[in-house]
Amino acid sequence: MSASAEDRGDRFARVALSALCEPGNAELSDLVAAHGVVEALERLLCGEASSTLVRGAEARLGGRDVADVVSALERIAETCQARVIVPDDPEWPARVDDLAVLCDEADPHTRPPICLWTRGRGDLAEALSRSASIVGARECTAYGRHVATELAFGLANRDWTVVSGGAYGVDAAAHRGALAGGGLTVAVLACGVDRPYPACNAGLFDSIVDTGFLVSEWPPGSTPQRRRFLVRNRVIAAATSGTVVVEAGLRSGARHTVRRAWELDRPVMIVPGPVTSEASAGVHQLARGPGETRIVTRAEEIVEDLGRLGADLAPPLHSPDGPRDRLNSSEAQILDAVPRRVGAAVERIAAQAGLPAAEARRVLPNLAARGLIERRDDRYRLAS
Amino acid sequence: MSASAEDRGDRFARVALSALCEPGNAELSDLVAAHGVVEALERLLCGEASSTLVRGAEARLGGRDVADVVSALERIAETCQARVIVPDDPEWPARVDDLAVLCDEADPHTRPPICLWTRGRGDLAEALSRSASIVGARECTAYGRHVATELAFGLANRDWTVVSGGAYGVDAAAHRGALAGGGLTVAVLACGVDRPYPACNAGLFDSIVDTGFLVSEWPPGSTPQRRRFLVRNRVIAAATSGTVVVEAGLRSGARHTVRRAWELDRPVMIVPGPVTSEASAGVHQLARGPGETRIVTRAEEIVEDLGRLGADLAPPLHSPDGPRDRLNSSEAQILDAVPRRVGAAVERIAAQAGLPAAEARRVLPNLAARGLIERRDDRYRLAS
Repeated sequence: MSASAEDRGDRFARVALSALCEPGNAELSDLVAAHGVVEALERLLCGEASSTLVRGAEARLGGRDVADVVSALERIAETCQARVIVPDDPEWPARVDDLAVLCDEADPHTRPPICLWTRGRGDLAEALSRSASIVGARECTAYGRHVATELAFGLANRDWTVVSGGAYGVDAAAHRGALAGGGLTVAVLACGVDRPYPACNAGLFDSIVDTGFLVSEWPPGSTPQRRRFLVRNRVIAAATSGTVVVEAGLRSGARHTVRRAWELDRPVMIVPGPVTSEASAGVHQLARGPGETRIVTRAEEIVEDLGRLGADLAPPLHSPDGPRDRLNSSEAQILDAVPRRVGAAVERIAAQAGLPAAEARRVLPNLAARGLIERRDDRYRLAS
Repeated sequence: MSASAEDRGDRFARVALSALCEPGNAELSDLVAAHGVVEALERLLCGEASSTLVRGAEARLGGRDVADVVSALERIAETCQARVIVPDDPEWPARVDDLAVLCDEADPHTRPPICLWTRGRGDLAEALSRSASIVGARECTAYGRHVATELAFGLANRDWTVVSGGAYGVDAAAHRGALAGGGLTVAVLACGVDRPYPACNAGLFDSIVDTGFLVSEWPPGSTPQRRRFLVRNRVIAAATSGTVVVEAGLRSGARHTVRRAWELDRPVMIVPGPVTSEASAGVHQLARGPGETRIVTRAEEIVEDLGRLGADLAPPLHSPDGPRDRLNSSEAQILDAVPRRVGAAVERIAAQAGLPAAEARRVLPNLAARGLIERRDDRYRLAS
């Protein structure tokens, strides 16, 4: 089957390009910006593009017709109930287009996605409108898993969508927390949504699809590759209101996601941990720059940092007031001057407090009445 | 014995005032600013000052002559080898005069010290010129004690003076770490230097005096009182280049020291801990404002934050490089496309990588030679 010119509309071209080029490719992005997506595909297929792009596309076609490649993808997508979302669709998460500002000399794959493959029933743009990514190490500790779960649970309770990768460790804990909290969660993958990786998380991925989304720039059938995780990270950073890092070693990929968030001017929040823990070393290093970070310890603080200014404030942490908190200044001064064990006379207490004896004589019975001090034989000491 | 007018010089007046008024008193500070310290004392004794000041001084004199009070203090000081330092002395730590800028409606005791009582042989100003305060909770955990000790040890190793209170917990751990590191440590007390509190730290105080300093605004014989710890905190904040907080609950006095440091525009550093630990909750809350904080995890970072700009940089944290870190971009791309278990032919790997087969044919043998992949029957897979 060969596609006619009219079949080859925007969506067809984007699906084809997602199969023929690595996502985020700067040369492709420039080609699309110059000629539109349909003509960009034509040029690529006629060899009228950079030789790297053209040779890469040829290698991926492997002699097949582009229309065959596209229909093969459509068949897999149908089987796994995946769909492709393109920028003209209402549910396109427009935030990812901010990636156009990224310019990383060392990485030629930072541009906005050409399309997004997704599995999930809802509206992706709506789900991502109030969202936080929770990222971190695969090799996390029980502490990291616990905190990722708690934060995601709290976000879900507050109708915030959780976004993460699909990896073990912090990613999986975040998704599980969001699901447990009855909220939406989105796994942004570095492989096809038909075969989410790692396979051991298959049950988790099924649960995510029930209410949330699996999302990928790579077409169905794509395998996860090490570099793809890095390329993927920019979408996690771009698609959300802000990024939270829970445990990351000095080499964790989560730190790469944070760099992208900084480049995109998205808020970056870190969850501190013991300075003696290698699993938190990368997090703490991020807190020293070069970009800005905020420390968060609970979901309310994430919402405060990402929500409406002044309207989503975290409730203050309270510790119980003691009776001392209700004393005025001279009462406190006199109470401070009352000895602990051996009682003292009024005059001595007044001298210690640096206040007139008359004042001490007035205040001391009040303090005794409140049970803070005790009187014996005209001498006062702290209540035992 | 009655003091003649000429005896009543600057030092005499300051010693007397330190016995007759609570340190930091704003009314006294204003009186001294208006009339000088000698006349301020005269006025206080003649009743020509605010009635609060005058009545407080009378209560503390308890009918004694001021000269008797001063000589009694001098006798105690001589016994415990304490001396008094006044602003005209070369070893006066001039940084504490920055306290003149503090203005706290809720606390009338924030002004610079009138004098400092000290025990210790060296030059206090020199010791404090490169110094960090390490403050935190008395009720700290083993983690807090460990980190306070380590940081102080590292500072001592780098010839930085450690400053803290004399309390249990973080304070004591910081002093011990500094002593173990062969460095100077300064305990700023809220009671007389002749009877440092708590008594259980007596052995520690003795060690501190051997090489470092006990310092107090209160004259010998003064008892510790709850409010005095708060008044004292401003000196810890003011006397040092910056303040580090190691574990503090939501109500810890260490948070008060930080507020003073912020008011004085001194750098504030925090040591993170688990968000699940109440002993770190106050620290993490400080990190969310209102002032600025920096996260520190090792002494090098404290020195970087407080030391000479660009000259005292902390050495970067390294993690071991793997063989993958030395690959160029197309090598990495091809390695990523090599399957883990079942070998693949060159053409398939090239297609996966989105690179021409010729490139894959060139790179694959190199990767095999470096032991990253293995070849069998013209197919490649990752080395096992």
